[in-house]
Amino acid sequence: VSEAPSNPNSHSTQPERRRPHGGRPIRVGLLGAGVVGGGVLALLAQHARQIEQRVGVRVEVGRALVRDLGKPRVPEAAGVPFTTDAEELFGDASLDLFVEVMGGTDEAGTLLARALSSGRSVVTANKALLAARGAGLFALAAANRADLAFEAAVGGGIPIIRTLRDAASSDEVVGITGILNGTSNFILTAMTDSRAPFAEALADAQARGFAEADPSLDVGGFDAAQKLLVLAMLAFGQEPVPLSHDPSSAVLVEGITAIDAADVEAADRLGFVVKHLVVGRDHGERVELRAHPALVRKLSAWAAVAGSLNAVKIEGRALGPLFMSGRGAGDLPTAVSVVADVVEVARSIVAGVPGLSTGLATGARAVAVRPLVPRADLELRYYVRFEVHDQPGVLARIAGALAEHRVSIAEIVQSEGKEGRARIVLTTHRAREGAMLASLAELAPISVAAPVLLRIEDTL
Amino acid sequence: VSEAPSNPNSHSTQPERRRPHGGRPIRVGLLGAGVVGGGVLALLAQHARQIEQRVGVRVEVGRALVRDLGKPRVPEAAGVPFTTDAEELFGDASLDLFVEVMGGTDEAGTLLARALSSGRSVVTANKALLAARGAGLFALAAANRADLAFEAAVGGGIPIIRTLRDAASSDEVVGITGILNGTSNFILTAMTDSRAPFAEALADAQARGFAEADPSLDVGGFDAAQKLLVLAMLAFGQEPVPLSHDPSSAVLVEGITAIDAADVEAADRLGFVVKHLVVGRDHGERVELRAHPALVRKLSAWAAVAGSLNAVKIEGRALGPLFMSGRGAGDLPTAVSVVADVVEVARSIVAGVPGLSTGLATGARAVAVRPLVPRADLELRYYVRFEVHDQPGVLARIAGALAEHRVSIAEIVQSEGKEGRARIVLTTHRAREGAMLASLAELAPISVAAPVLLRIEDTL
Repeated sequence: VSEAPSNPNSHSTQPERRRPHGGRPIRVGLLGAGVVGGGVLALLAQHARQIEQRVGVRVEVGRALVRDLGKPRVPEAAGVPFTTDAEELFGDASLDLFVEVMGGTDEAGTLLARALSSGRSVVTANKALLAARGAGLFALAAANRADLAFEAAVGGGIPIIRTLRDAASSDEVVGITGILNGTSNFILTAMTDSRAPFAEALADAQARGFAEADPSLDVGGFDAAQKLLVLAMLAFGQEPVPLSHDPSSAVLVEGITAIDAADVEAADRLGFVVKHLVVGRDHGERVELRAHPALVRKLSAWAAVAGSLNAVKIEGRALGPLFMSGRGAGDLPTAVSVVADVVEVARSIVAGVPGLSTGLATGARAVAVRPLVPRADLELRYYVRFEVHDQPGVLARIAGALAEHRVSIAEIVQSEGKEGRARIVLTTHRAREGAMLASLAELAPISVAAPVLLRIEDTL
Repeated sequence: VSEAPSNPNSHSTQPERRRPHGGRPIRVGLLGAGVVGGGVLALLAQHARQIEQRVGVRVEVGRALVRDLGKPRVPEAAGVPFTTDAEELFGDASLDLFVEVMGGTDEAGTLLARALSSGRSVVTANKALLAARGAGLFALAAANRADLAFEAAVGGGIPIIRTLRDAASSDEVVGITGILNGTSNFILTAMTDSRAPFAEALADAQARGFAEADPSLDVGGFDAAQKLLVLAMLAFGQEPVPLSHDPSSAVLVEGITAIDAADVEAADRLGFVVKHLVVGRDHGERVELRAHPALVRKLSAWAAVAGSLNAVKIEGRALGPLFMSGRGAGDLPTAVSVVADVVEVARSIVAGVPGLSTGLATGARAVAVRPLVPRADLELRYYVRFEVHDQPGVLARIAGALAEHRVSIAEIVQSEGKEGRARIVLTTHRAREGAMLASLAELAPISVAAPVLLRIEDTL
């Protein structure tokens, strides 16, 4: 079954046969054999026959790098040489490609750079590494004609990278929207279902294994923003930038920590659900990138993305909108994506044509890296919750400040709060974020607590 | 850029280079150059450089078969030899693969069989052909080591086939659900939004180009059922079977013609929306395949699939659920999928390994074709609307007939109908379809019109 015609133009005569890749198996160097790595070992072994049929030769794990040789492994690891010494993998000339599922950015980055420099292709599930050092690694891959595949780095089992790559080779991607952090979505879903306060929903997520002990990367919005940077490289040719909560940051990054049960409830009354979204949009001269909580319509597909699920929408000029949702994390969904990449990269090795990173390199070279839309220039609809002292004129003052900055109010409701406070919830029509922020700054003196500012995405 | 290392194991030394496919371009024979074919010509020309980078050599249309040489074509057709004589294409040994976008099953089937027999790979958008002759064509492809790619045949721009194929090589697909007929979904969406009667919604869809003059394949459920058969080949290794509305048919096929505004309204009050669904499920010994209208929860992602959009959910044992929605038809979304297949097949030709149909052949060979679950054995929840003469005891008689067949009622509402009639709408708990049908048969004497029986899918 591993023979193939060497000249596809000679099909009509008895085809001359050659053995792809010289008939040798494709040998994988596995960097890391924890939960995802164990899933990769298991799936490669369990589906060996199907994979061989797609690749033309067998695909097998040749060696695995681990931190602890004593740790128990999946049964499919039997027979695979394990080592704690990376030199053993780099010294093994029979390894064709490396799979990185160890995590972290320093050691993983060094190992992947070394693999790519030697012309070996790489499959990684490491979005933090790509967001930090992606541009350099992709350049290295292109220079060495190697593949750098990363389906599992964004959206777990959702084939978002493959779809973006296909769109990049025969279409033009103009927009990306996503729910890309399962922890935040789990917490917001719990707050929506039970009206639990944020701290309680977070503690529950931690107890159930859906949030880390230090949840700041997730609930701070950074994990989602890193994934957005990876998608923006592929879709728009943008190079990653440093991420921060600083108001002057090039990419708007906000997490969900300021959201209260009161916001979830107010959103519900307005016909919305609160979700943490990432948004990327091609405006021609400039590119818009942002990651923040937002109000989405209750009857939209986004509202139906519950618990730890992820979702993403790609908008292509020819393709139109394409929405996908599924498990964004977990060892098996992630391992499925890693193995799909291994199959694809193995096929490229057999073909002698790197097929995965070229699309990216094309995008990055074809489109000059463009400036990002500054935060003040964003034009969005807003939701604001003010907690103010309940005294005459507060509503007028809020309405006045917004009017002065030409922010037009869509709905506004004042209700009684606790301890002589009033709560004012309002939504705006589309407005410049700079104007919105200037209004809020002016209203600081009347606020008991910092107003909660959320964006409304009602056209998704 | 078309050079590649000939031996991927020698990466660490200066790589020896070879030109993939001998450096020759991949030449496409285009069968049909109508709206989709024109889109394919346009996308291949506009994205020629990106495609060359992914494939390793140029991909160009070598010849095109059309019915009418006088018809105006897209500008990108300039320079491509057009002919009305298929022999000119089969006589051209330089053509590497054929793209079939002509439609119909007879001529298209003959041409594709001939292409595959000569070892040439084929890309088709023709789901009717695959549902009618798929098994034979796939066997022919496997025997001749050619690819038979058909991403565009199901779900237009949604990458459902690629995703199923990836899942088939590293996972096990246990379920498929879909909204796969854009015309039916357009009509049901209009009925939901405006409470228009079916005939009016159909006429509007026809006037706006979303339904054919003869809409029976679409609104009769056959188009969706054909697509289900194509997906079931790939996911479960099932061979296609003839489709009919006959109650004894192996695959339950129902269309949307019996649905009235009254059903849309009753569904709404119960918290549901009416959609036309296809469902495939692996039960181990048997496989369940059905295509029919169903009530889905208003807050589910399915309810958000509006107008002519399509959607599909794949459930993989490792992957979990993966939901996708997008444009299910239209020249450009379909052309995007055709071109993605052309790129994939071209990469296989360069590699000398057919990569697309092998997964299918594997599935079909690995799993013996299994019996389908007979209609009477389906276990589902039901919605029934009875129109009866408003006389004492009708409700008791309905409740009695159902109880006798052990069908348990979940909700039941009687309301006044027109002209001395009563309307009784009920939903059931999970029940055997055989029992449900037996109850309805018993109740025929009290019914003024045939009861409307819909299935409820509340766990999607």
